[in-house]
Amino acid sequence: MSKSYRVAIVGASGAVGVEMLRVMERRNFPVSSLRLLASPRSSGKTLTFRGESHTIQPLHMNSFEDIDIAIFSAGGAISRDFAPEAVRNGAVVVDNSSAFRMHADVPLVVPEINGTDVKNHKGILANPNCTTAITLLALYPLHRQFGLKRIFASSYQAVSGAGARAIDELRHQTDAVAKHKPILKEIFPHQIAFNVIPHVDAFLDTGYTKEEMKMQNEGRRIMHLPNFKASVTCVRTPVYRAHSIAVSAEFEKPVNLEDARSTLSKAPGLQFLDDGYPMPLDSAGKDDCFAGRLRLDCAMENGLALWICGDQLLKGAALNAIQIAELL
Amino acid sequence: MSKSYRVAIVGASGAVGVEMLRVMERRNFPVSSLRLLASPRSSGKTLTFRGESHTIQPLHMNSFEDIDIAIFSAGGAISRDFAPEAVRNGAVVVDNSSAFRMHADVPLVVPEINGTDVKNHKGILANPNCTTAITLLALYPLHRQFGLKRIFASSYQAVSGAGARAIDELRHQTDAVAKHKPILKEIFPHQIAFNVIPHVDAFLDTGYTKEEMKMQNEGRRIMHLPNFKASVTCVRTPVYRAHSIAVSAEFEKPVNLEDARSTLSKAPGLQFLDDGYPMPLDSAGKDDCFAGRLRLDCAMENGLALWICGDQLLKGAALNAIQIAELL
Repeated sequence: MSKSYRVAIVGASGAVGVEMLRVMERRNFPVSSLRLLASPRSSGKTLTFRGESHTIQPLHMNSFEDIDIAIFSAGGAISRDFAPEAVRNGAVVVDNSSAFRMHADVPLVVPEINGTDVKNHKGILANPNCTTAITLLALYPLHRQFGLKRIFASSYQAVSGAGARAIDELRHQTDAVAKHKPILKEIFPHQIAFNVIPHVDAFLDTGYTKEEMKMQNEGRRIMHLPNFKASVTCVRTPVYRAHSIAVSAEFEKPVNLEDARSTLSKAPGLQFLDDGYPMPLDSAGKDDCFAGRLRLDCAMENGLALWICGDQLLKGAALNAIQIAELL
Repeated sequence: MSKSYRVAIVGASGAVGVEMLRVMERRNFPVSSLRLLASPRSSGKTLTFRGESHTIQPLHMNSFEDIDIAIFSAGGAISRDFAPEAVRNGAVVVDNSSAFRMHADVPLVVPEINGTDVKNHKGILANPNCTTAITLLALYPLHRQFGLKRIFASSYQAVSGAGARAIDELRHQTDAVAKHKPILKEIFPHQIAFNVIPHVDAFLDTGYTKEEMKMQNEGRRIMHLPNFKASVTCVRTPVYRAHSIAVSAEFEKPVNLEDARSTLSKAPGLQFLDDGYPMPLDSAGKDDCFAGRLRLDCAMENGLALWICGDQLLKGAALNAIQIAELL
């Protein structure tokens, strides 16, 4: 007899929240009851789960009574305020925000990589940054084989990483450019249609953004690799869905293409394209991530260059969160 | 008394050809007569230069009689076939294609970097790859100060780098997505609207593309730096105009931000943004290139990371070609 869970989803109306419901349906996640929570702005709306309509309720401190698993995807501030309350009510929290990712007693988990870390939780588990999770799905198997030292990477991030309203913003701006109308900016600091913006998340004093440092900081925790270094430039591109990352990776041991190809072909959650290359348009809506353009890096010893794509709403967020919940 | 030149432009109807006329007008290039040449498909069309209409003539072997300077921008095959003929007729050729860039007796020139190489020409001078020229405008001054060893870079290339029809293709595909019509592909191998394509120019056996290796190969010639290494991923993005490049650069000497900022602020042809960052949308139509997001690279000693943008039709092609012609 398999157990079944009372699940709450915080941020149910967002881009990730909606994907969570679809992922739980697709994977037959054992849900005995479902409570959809969001800000007062979205409460009263309905979402369908397994053919039944569920009304979104406003999030309160007492929203977590009789809940086994609470999955948060409503930003760091909401998580900081409400996740401890959910834990006090007896729920286990899977948090999509960055609020707890660097807390020593909160496992930060990509199930294919460090699924066993789940058992160390004290009520809260964190879901990594989307770009980091997608990149590590390809890097970690290579690390196991060759010993990862550092990477230089650039991202090509879809607007949906900034939420449902960012998708609308790209659509509206694209239409406005065609019709020579004024460009309205609400989510992104600059026009994203027909442009790229090298600015995702806030700037740090070092000149890197928070988003860029997540690769190194979260990568170290997930891979248990405290000396891992990552110099990243994160760039928003006018793509609706699925992130891409160009990576040059340096390893401790000599690398060779044959072994690297074989490793990537067997990597869980990853499809390796030996011919052709993945693109965000093909990766959108897919649970798996994709790697291609594998080559010996021409500017370093023991280096591999590769190109990785993945749906950041799925592996980068909703899918990974549900996978963590499945491990519990 | 300044001399005036009889100028031929081969590929006059293309995206770069049209820019050449504007650049020559803007810079008061001393033109005594102008001959516009293109394929039979474009011949008969007219273009305006300094208020006068000029009819495009079909390109023939005898198109270069009584021409002092012939500027080619019609692809490698046309340059290989016709540039030697132009030289035999007494013209000096400035070639925008990749046909002669690696020939030892053809100077490959970015005027701000190696303008003095112009004097070594034997009839043909080559204009570098657009992404390379834009990147080196920022890298070379840093090299002079700190001694450049190698770079890891990723490009965000505009469709106009693939010519005038590529601009139409992005526009048509964008419209087709909005109207749920079929996507027509002619120039790019895949849909470029709302997508990114990690494939510019042909693939080599190493897994790199020709475009990607131009940074290293052409960079070595332009900077007179035979050991320069560059691992690059070139990616086409749905941007109309202006390329962007994310770079991590390693130097021989210790680097510091104060000196690097000061150097970039004084670099010819470059505008350095200490606050904010350049984007392709702002860089389009500008003669200068732009650098920003300068930071100490967090994954290497003596490393700097930065972000560079430039209009690849101007500095990447037309402007640089006319600047070379001005040096003659």
